[in-house]
Amino acid sequence: MEQIISFGDTIVALSTPAGSGALALIRLSGPAAVETVADAWKGADLRLAASHTAHLGEYIGRDGKPLDQCVATIYRGPRSFTGEDMVEISVHGSGWIQRAVVNDLIERGLRPAAPGEFSQRAFLNGKIDLAQAEGIADLIGASSRAAHSLAIRQTKGQFSRKLDAMRDSLVELASLLELELDFSEEDVEFADRSRLASLAEELCATITRLADSYGAGSVIKEGVNVVIAGIPNAGKSTLLNNLLGDDKAIVSDIAGTTRDVIEDTREIGGILFRFIDTAGLRESDDVIERIGIGRARERLAKASVVIWVIDVTSPLSPQTDEIRTSMRDINPDCRLILLLNKTDLPRDRWSFDFESFKDSLKNLTESQENGSAFHGDEPLLCGSAGSESTAKEIENCLEKTSRRFIDREADVVITNARHYEALLRGRDALERVLAGLRDGLPADLIAQDLREATHHLGTITGAVTTDTLLQTIFSRFCVGK
Amino acid sequence: MEQIISFGDTIVALSTPAGSGALALIRLSGPAAVETVADAWKGADLRLAASHTAHLGEYIGRDGKPLDQCVATIYRGPRSFTGEDMVEISVHGSGWIQRAVVNDLIERGLRPAAPGEFSQRAFLNGKIDLAQAEGIADLIGASSRAAHSLAIRQTKGQFSRKLDAMRDSLVELASLLELELDFSEEDVEFADRSRLASLAEELCATITRLADSYGAGSVIKEGVNVVIAGIPNAGKSTLLNNLLGDDKAIVSDIAGTTRDVIEDTREIGGILFRFIDTAGLRESDDVIERIGIGRARERLAKASVVIWVIDVTSPLSPQTDEIRTSMRDINPDCRLILLLNKTDLPRDRWSFDFESFKDSLKNLTESQENGSAFHGDEPLLCGSAGSESTAKEIENCLEKTSRRFIDREADVVITNARHYEALLRGRDALERVLAGLRDGLPADLIAQDLREATHHLGTITGAVTTDTLLQTIFSRFCVGK
Repeated sequence: MEQIISFGDTIVALSTPAGSGALALIRLSGPAAVETVADAWKGADLRLAASHTAHLGEYIGRDGKPLDQCVATIYRGPRSFTGEDMVEISVHGSGWIQRAVVNDLIERGLRPAAPGEFSQRAFLNGKIDLAQAEGIADLIGASSRAAHSLAIRQTKGQFSRKLDAMRDSLVELASLLELELDFSEEDVEFADRSRLASLAEELCATITRLADSYGAGSVIKEGVNVVIAGIPNAGKSTLLNNLLGDDKAIVSDIAGTTRDVIEDTREIGGILFRFIDTAGLRESDDVIERIGIGRARERLAKASVVIWVIDVTSPLSPQTDEIRTSMRDINPDCRLILLLNKTDLPRDRWSFDFESFKDSLKNLTESQENGSAFHGDEPLLCGSAGSESTAKEIENCLEKTSRRFIDREADVVITNARHYEALLRGRDALERVLAGLRDGLPADLIAQDLREATHHLGTITGAVTTDTLLQTIFSRFCVGK
Repeated sequence: MEQIISFGDTIVALSTPAGSGALALIRLSGPAAVETVADAWKGADLRLAASHTAHLGEYIGRDGKPLDQCVATIYRGPRSFTGEDMVEISVHGSGWIQRAVVNDLIERGLRPAAPGEFSQRAFLNGKIDLAQAEGIADLIGASSRAAHSLAIRQTKGQFSRKLDAMRDSLVELASLLELELDFSEEDVEFADRSRLASLAEELCATITRLADSYGAGSVIKEGVNVVIAGIPNAGKSTLLNNLLGDDKAIVSDIAGTTRDVIEDTREIGGILFRFIDTAGLRESDDVIERIGIGRARERLAKASVVIWVIDVTSPLSPQTDEIRTSMRDINPDCRLILLLNKTDLPRDRWSFDFESFKDSLKNLTESQENGSAFHGDEPLLCGSAGSESTAKEIENCLEKTSRRFIDREADVVITNARHYEALLRGRDALERVLAGLRDGLPADLIAQDLREATHHLGTITGAVTTDTLLQTIFSRFCVGK
């Protein structure tokens, strides 16, 4: 039988998005949930209602006036999300009714729920662990198939089970070490030092694998940054609008039209891409040196992919050497897509030496070992920034470039900065355990590092928590969850 | 037993407001509703689920991947909103999940619901009448206590019952008249002409009362238009921000700062007020500002209340004669509130002759019979447009001014233009019936006008409908209702 904690008070919140719609859900949890709604209810006696049943009725305000015709669904603890008695009231979706019913319930003695308080109660009642709760928050925030996949796996506790298994081994070894301390006079060894060392090594490797997934994980969660770069009037904003299917950026023939950094997101092949249009990079020997606009440079530095738009009709268009120098300076790790724009115009209007460009590209490809910004297989596209076919080609490139993120979908992947931090700290402690074993340190010192490692892993699933930690985590949730 | 029409196809829509929140509701209605969700469901077999029960489970996409952990509530027809089998799925509220689940259901053969299609099915299955359905739409749109009160009464069918009773009397009389036609050779009178006349008169009076309530009804529904007027820099935007508790309008010391018409709403004492800040009224050389003034005039013409802000420190402030002339021109019916602004400044800074203003006000009050814009009891307030006490005084004035709307709360009030139109047409036909009776017209002519009156009243509740009418009505609903 589950042990349900009574929090004394009953909480209420609107759980559906703010605004007007056909319906909205108001959620209650706590000992007085059923009773309070029953008091306001004209219809069946909700006090007698079985768990998981829905009832049509009328919500009567404290002034005796009907507020809405609605459906109340009853969940009896512990068979509810929070483990407590819960009621969900489905009201008509006017902002006015939503507010009126929530306010009426508060006047009847309920308390407005803090952000994430329903999930927090679920955690404290052992219905979910911390990492699962954070998975729910990620699920609500997920804006692509890949981000959603990761979050749903986290809510199902796959990551938690992996961590718990690791932690259990540590706890077992720690207890053997502590046993030795009780017999310290007798100089016995209950804990097998070599087994301890190999386990610590194994855990370090697992933690490293998990921590390494954080980069990909956060890209999946936040989106792949794609920066569109090029000289002024190369066609960057035209390309952005084309990719987003929208008139996000103002397009004109006047060079330097785009002053702000303009961005928007789009899902391609299950991955969220965050497209960023930048101010034109000013013409000069060193393209980037003369940007003048620090923001474009900052964006380039954080890009996962840069689409470099080269206007073949402009004599100012940079050759690959220049691009290489620029990107090596700013962000040697990003993937590059080169778009030769306006190649639909007649060849005699080109001011751009295509052949020598191709040659220099070849050289670059061969010199990629030397830390080139190019990865050898960077796509070179010819087309028109505004055409459908060019957009399609770029989408294909982006999808291919980002398959490495999608491939991680099958593994357990870290997406949460807090988990990442805790893993790194756990690994530090384990490495001290290993060093201690190598140096033959006494059991009590090793046990202390082991306890620390156990502690850090425990904070992830919530086996170890503090009030501050819980508050930090759940205050990031939305209200009503 | 209710007669449920089978529409063949099953519809699906997101019913909660668009956007991200803790939860969202997806609604299905039709013969395949339960079966389709059951196919995608990992958990209890929903096919066996009783009506009005909620089930926790996992929604598995067509590709075999879990889309969400959610709750499905089953409603078996005819005990559902539409009268058909229905399922409501409560999913986690990310925009991505909402779209993914709806799209997955569509791929499984469901059809996206048209706006208002759930309500339309409820109407066609006799679960609600047309006026009730329109009440639901109003309920969702209601943004004040008074508007909500009216809408909820309409959903409960009070108005419909009144209309049906009226219509029943007409139908009964018409049938007696038609009976006479069958015996036309014999010159008998089954229908008591004097009873018919008195009933028609009574109905005309009732319809007139209802139709007269439309002005108040639409004000309750749409909000009371309050226009803030005055010369440039009189403090209009300061007052607007003060009333709204917000920095909606840009305030500066430069006369003519406000060019657009700025508006926002606020509920005071259960009534929705729509506050409208206008460009300062003056002859201006600035073209854009002059366009603003043209718009200000339009707004003044549609105002229910005008708050005229008079800057006591400005020699340009109009005297009452000027205000009277303006308002008589533009909108003689509106209520006026005069605010003498900046009276907190020392008297020696006033450029405004308060005493002669009060005198002219008195004259105005006495001359109100002659079509003055003033109603004799218009409030004259002194204060500062930015102070809390002035805002409070104005709120009190507005509440008092608008009590006439609140008083209508108890009656059946018309808020719908379609109903208003139908009532007027019904009354026209009834007046022809009365004229026919007076002039001793033959039964067949009178019967025709009676039928027409019956028809018009019938369109309100939907006793008489056409496809076009239904489409017009339900297309105004939001999707998911």
